Amino acid sequence: MRVVIGVMGGGTADQAVLDAAFHLGRLIAESGWVLLNGGRNAGVMAASARGAADAGGLVVGVLPDANWHGVAPDVHIPVLTGMGDARNEVNVLSSRVVIALRGGAGTLSEIALALKAGRSVVTVDFALGDAFATYYECGQLIDTATPTDAIAQVRRLLAEQGLIAERP
Amino acid sequence: MRVVIGVMGGGTADQAVLDAAFHLGRLIAESGWVLLNGGRNAGVMAASARGAADAGGLVVGVLPDANWHGVAPDVHIPVLTGMGDARNEVNVLSSRVVIALRGGAGTLSEIALALKAGRSVVTVDFALGDAFATYYECGQLIDTATPTDAIAQVRRLLAEQGLIAERP
Amino acid sequence: MRVVIGVMGGGTADQAVLDAAFHLGRLIAESGWVLLNGGRNAGVMAASARGAADAGGLVVGVLPDANWHGVAPDVHIPVLTGMGDARNEVNVLSSRVVIALRGGAGTLSEIALALKAGRSVVTVDFALGDAFATYYECGQLIDTATPTDAIAQVRRLLAEQGLIAERP
Amino acid sequence: MRVVIGVMGGGTADQAVLDAAFHLGRLIAESGWVLLNGGRNAGVMAASARGAADAGGLVVGVLPDANWHGVAPDVHIPVLTGMGDARNEVNVLSSRVVIALRGGAGTLSEIALALKAGRSVVTVDFALGDAFATYYECGQLIDTATPTDAIAQVRRLLAEQGLIAERP
Repeated sequence: MRVVIGVMGGGTADQAVLDAAFHLGRLIAESGWVLLNGGRNAGVMAASARGAADAGGLVVGVLPDANWHGVAPDVHIPVLTGMGDARNEVNVLSSRVVIALRGGAGTLSEIALALKAGRSVVTVDFALGDAFATYYECGQLIDTATPTDAIAQVRRLLAEQGLIAERP
Repeated sequence: MRVVIGVMGGGTADQAVLDAAFHLGRLIAESGWVLLNGGRNAGVMAASARGAADAGGLVVGVLPDANWHGVAPDVHIPVLTGMGDARNEVNVLSSRVVIALRGGAGTLSEIALALKAGRSVVTVDFALGDAFATYYECGQLIDTATPTDAIAQVRRLLAEQGLIAERP
Repeated sequence: MRVVIGVMGGGTADQAVLDAAFHLGRLIAESGWVLLNGGRNAGVMAASARGAADAGGLVVGVLPDANWHGVAPDVHIPVLTGMGDARNEVNVLSSRVVIALRGGAGTLSEIALALKAGRSVVTVDFALGDAFATYYECGQLIDTATPTDAIAQVRRLLAEQGLIAERP
Repeated sequence: MRVVIGVMGGGTADQAVLDAAFHLGRLIAESGWVLLNGGRNAGVMAASARGAADAGGLVVGVLPDANWHGVAPDVHIPVLTGMGDARNEVNVLSSRVVIALRGGAGTLSEIALALKAGRSVVTVDFALGDAFATYYECGQLIDTATPTDAIAQVRRLLAEQGLIAERP
């Protein structure tokens, strides 16, 4: 069974976020993990898929749609749910760790659903404020400064889950 | 077609929140609207259902489960989804306006999904912080101090939607 | 908690099936049960809703859509799922007994999902053939000739479930 | 984008069906396609996954569960839906062609949902009877005698969809 890492973020995003998404995709692929995202040809989904595919990784896209129109070109395996944003629950359940980039309500819903489902969430430059205080305190939610920092946290969390070996 | 108002909030909640939930249920029923919530026999779900049923209102519970165990006793119509927290999307889509009480990740996911789906969200004593700033600014997300204030906002929003007559 | 009875059938149907749907809706309402169907303004959904509403009953429609366009006019409580035919699972889980009229693949999926979920299915003039033999044999699937016969079977099944009193 | 072929069938199955499932998995992998199934460690799911993995193919399992317990050992990418049999809709939407082996209500629901969604369904030694007559007549549903025959039909359908080159 492969290790699947989710990357969540907006369908529209500014260039700094898109660059971070691309970088995260690349780092996930280089780590030997599968990238899972929302699969659409837009924003963080398309950028992270491109980063992972460029680095030779495998990309699973879990789409809100019921057909293959609008799948990001770098998604290798589109999972079509036809269930709109209810698919956000599938995204987070299927991910060993969820990484979230700056985004709007869709991204916030994925962060919250992930926390509800017991998944750890690592954000990149996206402090969420008081409503999420409990989850910061218990360490289930962690903000990081860069994609590289986020991947270090993912690596630590996967080691804790026994899915990869601890680094010396 | 009846006007359906959603009330979201935690499966565990302190007494002040439970009291507010009961009060909201009562006010919704007295307004002639249908209460929709998560349907479980716990926290805000059970308390708001009791408030609405006590006032002679109709209560729809949209449950994460696939059977009738654990349905709150005051739910008249349990909708069983069997899909865990993916049912949060059903809750918010089905509500003309979503009211949210203080809660954890589940409640936050419902707020975010509602905003993503274009529903207005009225919170009661639950300021959400910077991550939701855009939605406060455009007026899609409104914090209020009390159940009575929240219902006044709901009434205004329903009038804007043309679902009820404007008050003089 | 109200007794909810599901009526499934095609979005397009010939007049005999539409008449049976209307009749079933009426009989369900007259029995004091809630009618649940797929909610769209088409075929068996619209006809059964009209029958139940005409007789003063309550109608819940569980829709594939994410908005209120296309809801049958006699649906009192639209539950919007936004999840296409995955909502068929919600329809059958939420029904104490599922009644199915002649239909196509959508109706067949609801019959099969209901059987999988352990719900009893009563069809009206709709023999399903060999693939369903096991379910006929164990009595979980029953074909009847008329709406009146179907309701008699529903009444028997509800009594077995302890949801209504046995007839003398 | 990879070509994804779904294989559906019971969680319990007799040896002939399990052998066919294993064989189908192998043939799908040898054709260079991705196998998608229900992902659980049981029946047709486990057997088809083993066949595909043994032949060096990639296996996606779309599970009803919200965690990784009970995933078939040969599934490479588990997609966790947490939505029980509503995930059957995801299985069929995500498949370019759906192959179905003899099964019970779960398998029948997947066949029906696939037909409703416009997917072609190829069964192996599983004639479904009169209720499905329309779909046999229009060629959307095809029964075949063996896994090899089924794969020949899949190949023809993929060529019609322009997803693979026509054989000379």
